[in-house]
Amino acid sequence: MQIEQLISAIEPLEAAAMQAARERQDTLTKPQGSLGRLEELSLQIAGITADPRPRLRHKVVLVMAGDHGVVEEGVSAYPQAVTPAMVVNFLNGGAAINVLARHVGARVVVVDMGVAVDLPPHPHLLVHKIARATGNIARGPAMSRSQALECLQIGAQICLDQIEAGLDLLATGDMGIGNTTPAAAVACAITNRPVEEIAGRGTGVDDQGMQRKIAAIQRALAINRPEPADGVDVLAKLGGFEIGGLAGAILAAASRRRPVVIDGFISTAAAMIAVSLAPAVRPYLIAAHTSMEQGHHVMMDWLQVRPLLDLRMRLGEGTGAALAMSLVEASCKILDEMATFAEAGVAGKDA
Amino acid sequence: MQIEQLISAIEPLEAAAMQAARERQDTLTKPQGSLGRLEELSLQIAGITADPRPRLRHKVVLVMAGDHGVVEEGVSAYPQAVTPAMVVNFLNGGAAINVLARHVGARVVVVDMGVAVDLPPHPHLLVHKIARATGNIARGPAMSRSQALECLQIGAQICLDQIEAGLDLLATGDMGIGNTTPAAAVACAITNRPVEEIAGRGTGVDDQGMQRKIAAIQRALAINRPEPADGVDVLAKLGGFEIGGLAGAILAAASRRRPVVIDGFISTAAAMIAVSLAPAVRPYLIAAHTSMEQGHHVMMDWLQVRPLLDLRMRLGEGTGAALAMSLVEASCKILDEMATFAEAGVAGKDA
Repeated sequence: MQIEQLISAIEPLEAAAMQAARERQDTLTKPQGSLGRLEELSLQIAGITADPRPRLRHKVVLVMAGDHGVVEEGVSAYPQAVTPAMVVNFLNGGAAINVLARHVGARVVVVDMGVAVDLPPHPHLLVHKIARATGNIARGPAMSRSQALECLQIGAQICLDQIEAGLDLLATGDMGIGNTTPAAAVACAITNRPVEEIAGRGTGVDDQGMQRKIAAIQRALAINRPEPADGVDVLAKLGGFEIGGLAGAILAAASRRRPVVIDGFISTAAAMIAVSLAPAVRPYLIAAHTSMEQGHHVMMDWLQVRPLLDLRMRLGEGTGAALAMSLVEASCKILDEMATFAEAGVAGKDA
Repeated sequence: MQIEQLISAIEPLEAAAMQAARERQDTLTKPQGSLGRLEELSLQIAGITADPRPRLRHKVVLVMAGDHGVVEEGVSAYPQAVTPAMVVNFLNGGAAINVLARHVGARVVVVDMGVAVDLPPHPHLLVHKIARATGNIARGPAMSRSQALECLQIGAQICLDQIEAGLDLLATGDMGIGNTTPAAAVACAITNRPVEEIAGRGTGVDDQGMQRKIAAIQRALAINRPEPADGVDVLAKLGGFEIGGLAGAILAAASRRRPVVIDGFISTAAAMIAVSLAPAVRPYLIAAHTSMEQGHHVMMDWLQVRPLLDLRMRLGEGTGAALAMSLVEASCKILDEMATFAEAGVAGKDA
C-alpha cells in the first residue's frame, strides 16, 4: 500500500447525498434543525459515505500502542512497563476502552506498533513493531524517515484489513507511556505555537515533571528542526509509532469513505499528521471530545473541528471516541428511522 | 400517594457508598480522575442508589403530554393539533425519542396528562387527563390548586408504578405545543429574572410570535402573582399538566433513590417545581444537556446542575435525556467492569 495512492483516492464529501439527507431531515417529525448537531452529523456521514441514509453497522476502535525514548527525560508519572501491561489489559477486556466499546457495540482492535518489550502472543494482538520504542526526541529524531513511512503504511493496511472485515465507523485510540510529549511536540511543530501553550500534564506529572516535559519538547524542536509542511518529517523527528500508525489508518479510512472519530490529544496529533499529508482528510474527521490536556483546543482549531463532548476526560485509549461513536450512530438512526410528517399524519409548522 | 409523604422520604445521598465508589475508582487501571465527569457521575449514582457498585438495568423515558390554553395568544409556530398527533407518533415508535430510546436501550412511557382532545385508545398510552388543556395563563391561572396537587400525585404514582415494573434510571420528557411559554413563566417566577432573559423561540416562532410570547408571559406573571417559594402555587398559576406530572415523578424517583436525568427546557422547569417543594431532590438530578432555548442555563444555575451534553438541541420529548442516559450507564459500567491495577498486574503512578 503506497501512501500516495491512498491520498489521491480521498475525494470530497458527496454533495448529492448530503442534500438528500438534508431534505429528508426536514421532513421528519420535529421542528427543522431542532436536533442540532445530530442533524449536522448525519449530513456529514451521508456526505462521507455517499449514502443519503447511511447505517453504521460495524464500529471499530483501533488502539495502537508504542513506547517513547523521551521517557528517559522524566516526562511521565508512570513507568514504561505500564505500556505492555495495559496492552495485555486491553486484550483481556479489563481496560476503560473495553468497557466503553462494549457499551457502544464497537470492537476493539489492538496493535503493537512499537512497544519497548515483546508482548506475550495473543490471538487478538496485531504485532507490527517498527522498533522497540522511538528514539529520545530531546536528543535526536524519533525514527528514520523510512520508519515514518512504514508506520503510515502499516496503519493504513490494518485499517484496510478492518474495512474488509466490516468497518462503517472508525475510532482512533492510543496507548504509550510518555506519548503526550511527542503529541505535544508534533502539535507545536505544525501550529508553531509555544510549548507552554500546548503541553499538559498527561497522566498527571507534578510541577517538576512538567518543567522537564516542556524543556524536553523545546529541545526536541530545537535539535530536530522539523519541516512543518512535511507531515512525514514531523512524524519522523517528533512522533511515535502509534501516532504514525493512526495517521495512516485515518488516511486509509478517508480513502475508502469511512468516517473517523478522533479521540483526544494523541489521536488529534495523528490526525494533524494525516491532514498535513492530505488536507482532503479534514471533512472525514469527527472530533470526539475536548481533552483536559491543555493545548487540545488549539489542535482542534487547526483541524477546524468542533468536539462533540466535554466530559473533562484525559485517558486516551479511544475512550472519548467510543462515547462519541454512539452519538454518531444515533445521528444516523434519527435520519433513517424517524417517521416523516406525511407518514405520521402530523401537521407542519404554521399549518 | 400524598406528596408530603414522598417529600419526607427523600434522604441525602449515602456518603458511605460514594466513598466506597471513590475508593474503587482509584484502584481501576487508569490515572486517578482521568475519566473526569464519568467518574463523578458514578459516585453520584452510588450515593443516590446507596450502592457502591450500581448497575442500571432498567431505563425509562417518561414522556408526559399536555396542552396549553396560552396558545390562543399566538405563542407557538405549530398548531395545537400537533400535540395529539405526536403522542400517536410516540406510540407508533416513529418520533425522535423512540429512535433515541431504542438506541440507548430505554423504554418509553407515554402519558396524556391533559391533551386538548381525546386520543384514540392504545394499549401503551396512560391516560390521566387532568383537563383538556390548561387555562390561558395570560388571562388567569393555568389550573386550580387542587389540580396542581393532582398533577403531582398522578406523576408520582406513575413513577412508583414504573419503579415497581423495573426502573433504575429515570429520564423526563415532554410534549405540548406552546409549553415553552409556561416553562419560561415558571422559571421567571422562581428565579425572578426578566422574561426577555428566559424566553426563547421554542419550536421556532418568528419575531412577531416572540414578542407575543414575551408579552403573554409578562401578563401571566402580572395577573397571577405567583408566590415564588410555593411550588404548588407556581405550578397552578403558570404551569402545565405535563410539567406538574413530571415534577411529581421526579419527587417520587428521589424518594425511592432513583437517579433522574432531566431533559431540556420543559423538564428543567418541572425539576425547579420539584426542588421548590423539596430541596433535597437536587442531588438526585442529572442535567442532560444545554438546550438551545435561551434561558435554560439560568434555570440550570438555579438548580445547581451542570449539563453533560451541548449538542444545540431544542426538541424536548426527552431526546437530550435519552442520550445522557447512555453516559450515566457508561459511568456505572466503568466503575463495575474495569479491572483494578492489582487484577491486571499494572504498575501504578510513580511505581
